[in-house]
Amino acid sequence: MRGIPGGVTAALGFRASGISSGIKPSGEPDLALVATGAPAAAAGVFTENLVRAAPVLVSQSRLRKGSARAVLINSGCANCLTGAVGIRDARRLSRAVARELGIAEDEILVASTGIIGRRLPVPQVERALPRLVKQLSRAHHAAAAQAILTTDLRVKEAAVETAIQGRPCRIGGMAKGAGMIAPSMATMLCVITTDVAVAPGLLRRLLAQAVARTFNRISVDGDMSTNDTVFALASGRSRVSVREGSRGARAFGQALQAVAGRLATLLIKDGEGAGKIAKIRVAGGRTDREAQACARRVAESLLVKTMLAGGDPNVGRIAAAVGASGARFDPRRLDVLIGAERIISRGAARRLGTAAMRKLLAAPDVQIGIHLHAGRGEGRMMTCDLTEEYVRINARYST
Amino acid sequence: MRGIPGGVTAALGFRASGISSGIKPSGEPDLALVATGAPAAAAGVFTENLVRAAPVLVSQSRLRKGSARAVLINSGCANCLTGAVGIRDARRLSRAVARELGIAEDEILVASTGIIGRRLPVPQVERALPRLVKQLSRAHHAAAAQAILTTDLRVKEAAVETAIQGRPCRIGGMAKGAGMIAPSMATMLCVITTDVAVAPGLLRRLLAQAVARTFNRISVDGDMSTNDTVFALASGRSRVSVREGSRGARAFGQALQAVAGRLATLLIKDGEGAGKIAKIRVAGGRTDREAQACARRVAESLLVKTMLAGGDPNVGRIAAAVGASGARFDPRRLDVLIGAERIISRGAARRLGTAAMRKLLAAPDVQIGIHLHAGRGEGRMMTCDLTEEYVRINARYST
Repeated sequence: MRGIPGGVTAALGFRASGISSGIKPSGEPDLALVATGAPAAAAGVFTENLVRAAPVLVSQSRLRKGSARAVLINSGCANCLTGAVGIRDARRLSRAVARELGIAEDEILVASTGIIGRRLPVPQVERALPRLVKQLSRAHHAAAAQAILTTDLRVKEAAVETAIQGRPCRIGGMAKGAGMIAPSMATMLCVITTDVAVAPGLLRRLLAQAVARTFNRISVDGDMSTNDTVFALASGRSRVSVREGSRGARAFGQALQAVAGRLATLLIKDGEGAGKIAKIRVAGGRTDREAQACARRVAESLLVKTMLAGGDPNVGRIAAAVGASGARFDPRRLDVLIGAERIISRGAARRLGTAAMRKLLAAPDVQIGIHLHAGRGEGRMMTCDLTEEYVRINARYST
Repeated sequence: MRGIPGGVTAALGFRASGISSGIKPSGEPDLALVATGAPAAAAGVFTENLVRAAPVLVSQSRLRKGSARAVLINSGCANCLTGAVGIRDARRLSRAVARELGIAEDEILVASTGIIGRRLPVPQVERALPRLVKQLSRAHHAAAAQAILTTDLRVKEAAVETAIQGRPCRIGGMAKGAGMIAPSMATMLCVITTDVAVAPGLLRRLLAQAVARTFNRISVDGDMSTNDTVFALASGRSRVSVREGSRGARAFGQALQAVAGRLATLLIKDGEGAGKIAKIRVAGGRTDREAQACARRVAESLLVKTMLAGGDPNVGRIAAAVGASGARFDPRRLDVLIGAERIISRGAARRLGTAAMRKLLAAPDVQIGIHLHAGRGEGRMMTCDLTEEYVRINARYST
């Protein structure tokens, strides 16, 4: 498996485009389209929030048939808390884009991100659709990745080529998200495409597994969005076909997870105001579930996250978060490491001197290892620091 | 019931003192003592964190007998993650203060707050104890309240006088805490004293109830400390005596809750970097538990808290937190109010205009009302905004 350029159009059979339609008052790009020439197997994973945006409800319903031909995404407006009218708006836009593409309305998947509680400016977006469709090209993956951003600072793309059954195939994708990132699915939009041929049911299972191990293990701020969406589309245009339970399916699942993992890392690196990232590994939990809860609690502790920002390893904050996580363990056996250095040993803080302590957190990528000595359960999370910049961004992000 | 001055010595039978012993390098006051002339009924409520500081372990054990004569509290050092040596340090200090007071070692309760992972400078504190005991006076309640502070900006005292069985009696207290305030007990220390005569078992039950309804319903940052402690001491020096199940016990419980509630409000108002407070009330939950989980989720959402700081009512953030709380409800029936203004009605955001929206959050004390329309469950939380100042304070609070 090797990284390749091309993002969401790296796989054969996909074109993309991204333009400004005027949803964002700033005039920045805000409308993206990913399209296939023929129906593709399609799957999706969505937010677990009980309050779901209109495009989530529409796309969930359309995915039941397991195929799609295009994904229309807008930024600048979440089309959430918009009631029945929001559903009609999402349907009307997908009908218009389907007409431009000469396909059926229910072959369109939709996703939105931006301010909650506002209606989409539908006529304005409709007028931009012919231009959006005309721009479709394998070369325009970065324009599409740009058009789905909100507070993100950087475009997020990833793609790999791998060999399955001795033949080359590709998986690529794009994502957006910088805040409202957490519990059970980072608040984010993501489109993953592949030219592997795979049945919708298997695609859905492998996508759900990849999401659980990547996007569900990151947290910027612990907030869960109403619009989280990950789509996967498989064109089958390579000569690789994978079936349930085969070695090919395992290899495909690994490549899918590699792309999702790379995009998840890009999300955390671009976390609002983030200056550094931290990877938290918990070992020795009574169960995987308890170890994962422990990793999440540490990753979401404001005191741990401001400690990362300040760069001064206040080890008690890590221990306090571990102890509050609900994981059961004997505090007299707790070990905590930063990088290779043991900072808490058998429940007692080690004194390393201020200079040595500060050096531990100087890395842009901090590894926090926690051993509970209560069993074999493991958990992992990735998070970023909490800076004054995060507060500035979110105190001003505006109605 | 009426508010009176006097804090932790407002009730008859208590004296207090607070001095600088040199634990804090700044030279600020860091050692407090509250003492009774005779054994008092005593009860405590402690952090639910699995990682508990040495003074918590020592005090829990001593409270089994249900009485105490003094409380020794230091700030500047949490005496946590200090292993067996930390327990010895806490015992050695309480032995020394017991000697000064001419009472038994196990009549001393202890509490600590400050940096985790450091040992107490025991000889230095021991040298300060004669001065601390000599300063004991009914007039020195504010000096004691000052000496237990860490990042707090203000002293926190409250006291009430009420009539039970036609006779006057008093309850008063002091607290500290400004950060690491949350789940199941704000990270805080608190001493409540009363001159009512009450058996230790009843005192413990009424204290636990008051804590559940006050300190456990506030959150500054969602972090749970290793040192949380609330002590209650009853001298019996008024001529009021209350028994389990009596009207007097109910009146006493209400007065106890009034003092705890007042101190909890002071904690939130002094939340690190806080510019305003918000009171969240959830109605219509399937159960009280779900409604309370919903209130907590909203109170701890960073996006809601930065919205409070920025003053721009981004209503979707409230809805997203409600939907992510685990409370079950029909999102098409959700109503949300700020003050008296309905901002989400039957699951759809109302457009009120930017000026009207900003005005809603201009109050220093914001009321957020949430109706889930799923049952009769109710929940409440009090929180503060999240400001750049919070991050500044916590990125720098240092090892």
